[in-house]
Amino acid sequence: MAWEQCRPTAPGVAGRSSSRLSMEGPASPAPAPGALPYYVAFSQLLGLIVVAMTGAWLGVYRGGIAWESALQFNVHPLCMIIGLVFLQGDALLVYRVFRNEAKRTTKVLHGLLHVFAFVIALVGLVAVFDHHRKEGYADLYSLHSWCGILVFALFFVQWLVGFSFFLFPGASFSLRSRYRPQHVFFGAAIFLLSVATALLGLKEALLFELGTKYSTFEPEGVLANVLGLLLAAFATVVLYILTRADWKRPLQAEEQALSMDFKTLTEGDSPSSQ
Amino acid sequence: MAWEQCRPTAPGVAGRSSSRLSMEGPASPAPAPGALPYYVAFSQLLGLIVVAMTGAWLGVYRGGIAWESALQFNVHPLCMIIGLVFLQGDALLVYRVFRNEAKRTTKVLHGLLHVFAFVIALVGLVAVFDHHRKEGYADLYSLHSWCGILVFALFFVQWLVGFSFFLFPGASFSLRSRYRPQHVFFGAAIFLLSVATALLGLKEALLFELGTKYSTFEPEGVLANVLGLLLAAFATVVLYILTRADWKRPLQAEEQALSMDFKTLTEGDSPSSQ
Repeated sequence: MAWEQCRPTAPGVAGRSSSRLSMEGPASPAPAPGALPYYVAFSQLLGLIVVAMTGAWLGVYRGGIAWESALQFNVHPLCMIIGLVFLQGDALLVYRVFRNEAKRTTKVLHGLLHVFAFVIALVGLVAVFDHHRKEGYADLYSLHSWCGILVFALFFVQWLVGFSFFLFPGASFSLRSRYRPQHVFFGAAIFLLSVATALLGLKEALLFELGTKYSTFEPEGVLANVLGLLLAAFATVVLYILTRADWKRPLQAEEQALSMDFKTLTEGDSPSSQ
Repeated sequence: MAWEQCRPTAPGVAGRSSSRLSMEGPASPAPAPGALPYYVAFSQLLGLIVVAMTGAWLGVYRGGIAWESALQFNVHPLCMIIGLVFLQGDALLVYRVFRNEAKRTTKVLHGLLHVFAFVIALVGLVAVFDHHRKEGYADLYSLHSWCGILVFALFFVQWLVGFSFFLFPGASFSLRSRYRPQHVFFGAAIFLLSVATALLGLKEALLFELGTKYSTFEPEGVLANVLGLLLAAFATVVLYILTRADWKRPLQAEEQALSMDFKTLTEGDSPSSQ
């Protein structure tokens, strides 16, 4: 139906007409497309710079991080950048990076990275609500907070539905195939909304703290602007890797065979439209 | 290579083996996929509500719009929302909406909508710089302004390169096919960055004007938050329509034949990997 549909087949796994034949010999691992490793490395470099710069910003200009003080607020941006930007972005890339592992292993890694992302983000969420409570600040009035709560709710629902369909046994092959493109689209959309929410939060933190000094090109403002552009660049590179049709994970031998069996059974309702 | 690659073929235009045969009869127009018109209608409804709400926000809470007064600033958000959000989004959708028109007509419409978007956005850009000059405000210090300038530069380069490759005669069929996926990806990325920039600008305008009153759920703040969520919803629906593989514009009879001729000539370097 969508991004997942147009997938290359691994060498050693021929097209429909000869897929059974190819099962007779062991399938050789598909070579990764030439430029993919460089793009993945670039995405990781950008992601790590973003995390490091967030830490540097909080350390140099905001007094560092602690749970039991006014510095508790600073836990919020750091956790969100690590969880909902870096780890969530990497969770989307596992199907491109681990191209020749068993599908189930890759799925479990994808699900686990999302669990880590969620737990870290939850710590970040608790930090800001706790900080607001202690300082007597109002909750959930800003566009940043509305977007953030929306991201959290969508992330949680997406994880639950993804787990039920793809990891929990029971969902039929046909059901999985129909839901997969929706899962991929909403996964990317939630990631992009997370990055947009981070940008809104960064802007909010700058305007609250710097006020009119922002317009005098204070070092903190310039650093945070560069951080914002790098956040957008990380999102762009992740999205580029995700959407390149020839970088999609190739069907492995056993998946191809399964898809063929299914096609033979259902005739004309094949989920593999390769 | 990417989003554009996995395209359905119009009924009346058969696959590779019989495409010449199908040229003998007139190609019947391909029916639009069932749900597509509803999604397009929903995107237009969202887009129009976003434009109307921006106008309402500026009219009710910011004194309306005028060029020769302090109200000149208000020209900026309205022009940007109309040009770089609504019109740019619609320009991306023309290949999905006009599925059976000649490719060239659709291309010209796509290019023209981008010209309108650019001219309107240019008025918005002049408005804010002129306003800053008159009031003695600093320029280009904020993350919103940095993202905005980046969007403008990328939009302009993308339009020029797109025009040179796809409308100006000269670029070879092979060159067009290789560039197309990049053009599609960066078109979507620039649109998404435009929406993110609009969200940053909205947030900036709220914090400058409302300050601490933002946290008391002032009607203006709530209206602007809803506007922000609707902007994100518009971007999501446009992206969904763009990325649904089975909603891509089908190859028309003449394009299919051209692609076949090209394949016959080059053997194995076919840009149409359907």
